Amino acid sequence: MELDVVFSADKITDSAITGKVTVVIDVLRATSTIVTALANDALEVLPVVSIQEANLLASKLDQEYLVAGERQGVKIDYFDLGNSPCDYTADQVADKRVVLTTTNGTKCFARLDEANEVLIASLLNLEAVVARLQQESEVVFCCAGVEGQFALDDFVTAGKAISYLSSIQQTTLSDRAQAACDFYDYNQDQILTVLKESASGQNLISLGKEKDVEFIANSPEMDILPVYKNDRIKIQ
Amino acid sequence: MELDVVFSADKITDSAITGKVTVVIDVLRATSTIVTALANDALEVLPVVSIQEANLLASKLDQEYLVAGERQGVKIDYFDLGNSPCDYTADQVADKRVVLTTTNGTKCFARLDEANEVLIASLLNLEAVVARLQQESEVVFCCAGVEGQFALDDFVTAGKAISYLSSIQQTTLSDRAQAACDFYDYNQDQILTVLKESASGQNLISLGKEKDVEFIANSPEMDILPVYKNDRIKIQ
Repeated sequence: MELDVVFSADKITDSAITGKVTVVIDVLRATSTIVTALANDALEVLPVVSIQEANLLASKLDQEYLVAGERQGVKIDYFDLGNSPCDYTADQVADKRVVLTTTNGTKCFARLDEANEVLIASLLNLEAVVARLQQESEVVFCCAGVEGQFALDDFVTAGKAISYLSSIQQTTLSDRAQAACDFYDYNQDQILTVLKESASGQNLISLGKEKDVEFIANSPEMDILPVYKNDRIKIQ
Repeated sequence: MELDVVFSADKITDSAITGKVTVVIDVLRATSTIVTALANDALEVLPVVSIQEANLLASKLDQEYLVAGERQGVKIDYFDLGNSPCDYTADQVADKRVVLTTTNGTKCFARLDEANEVLIASLLNLEAVVARLQQESEVVFCCAGVEGQFALDDFVTAGKAISYLSSIQQTTLSDRAQAACDFYDYNQDQILTVLKESASGQNLISLGKEKDVEFIANSPEMDILPVYKNDRIKIQ
């Protein structure tokens, strides 16, 4: 099994993903929000890049939906929800569709047309993702990053998946995948600290969102495998 | 002291380096070759991007010079030297100027006009580099990478410098710098293995250049601090 990592949404190229299974990671916070929403019985999540697209798409939907998202970590004023996974309770999202736009995470999906299959991963559902990947021959972990830059929170999450997979089967790691794997192995007993000290974590803490970071690091695994297909994310 | 890392020559931007001390790293092999050449009394190294530039510059020099370089790890046919540091002995290079073009490393220099100062680092001279950096407030390690991609050999070398600096003074690390630091700390007892298993190391081994990798990992420190200024690299 060949494993690779892309460090930020802007670096996703067709050559990196064509014909491969792709795993999108934006652990602080878009993919954590998506996993939580689906675990709490949202019907589907529709990721869009811009606030304008979110408004336009929502105006066309005739089913019950929520419009959700943030810019620079702050909920968009008139939206139903921001991007705090803690807010995606069953009371809020069960049996609803969620149109979601975020600063970094939702940008990934627009670049993944050539991937064989697109899975969504967070620290919240990594066991389900890894279980699904075991039968694949080529996997690339696409980290959303922050504004086109490498982000430690996504890197350590990719590393955890790579470390698990490498412990149970033969893997061939790219330089980036080896770096992520070793970074996770070195920090595996202090993931909450890694998240809090990352640039994204520091930004969230400065916005009063430390509980999101703790929720993502400390919650029990959710047995949820979201898949992106035809512009929407659903449980497989 | 604020420390950052750029993962490849193509990612060097003015905003990343303006006003900062910049450390260029292409450990397999350009900066190792440069350090070795200067340690063996070459007068200076003139890094150029293209083979054409190397030929043109050499034709204009009236002093004694060598033209040196490689593409994809292989010496350019009619050049005096390739890019194997082992070949840059005093017999070959003492009292000479070296015009050098390499696939990745020499590309960095063309992008560093806005840096405050440009130092050259390899595993061969890291103690001298770190000693010089201790008085600085902002440092960015510019890894050459491979064809615009992240390379583990440069990453672990940046990480070693960051780990040293963080052990002796207060540092603030970007996400990339933290990743490099932890990767080095995790692998500090097996640097030769990291180099050999990296994509660049594998390429060199396939070309019969394993002795270069061993030379770079195992040689004693050279007390050499090369500085790039006015298109040339000299000992400070």
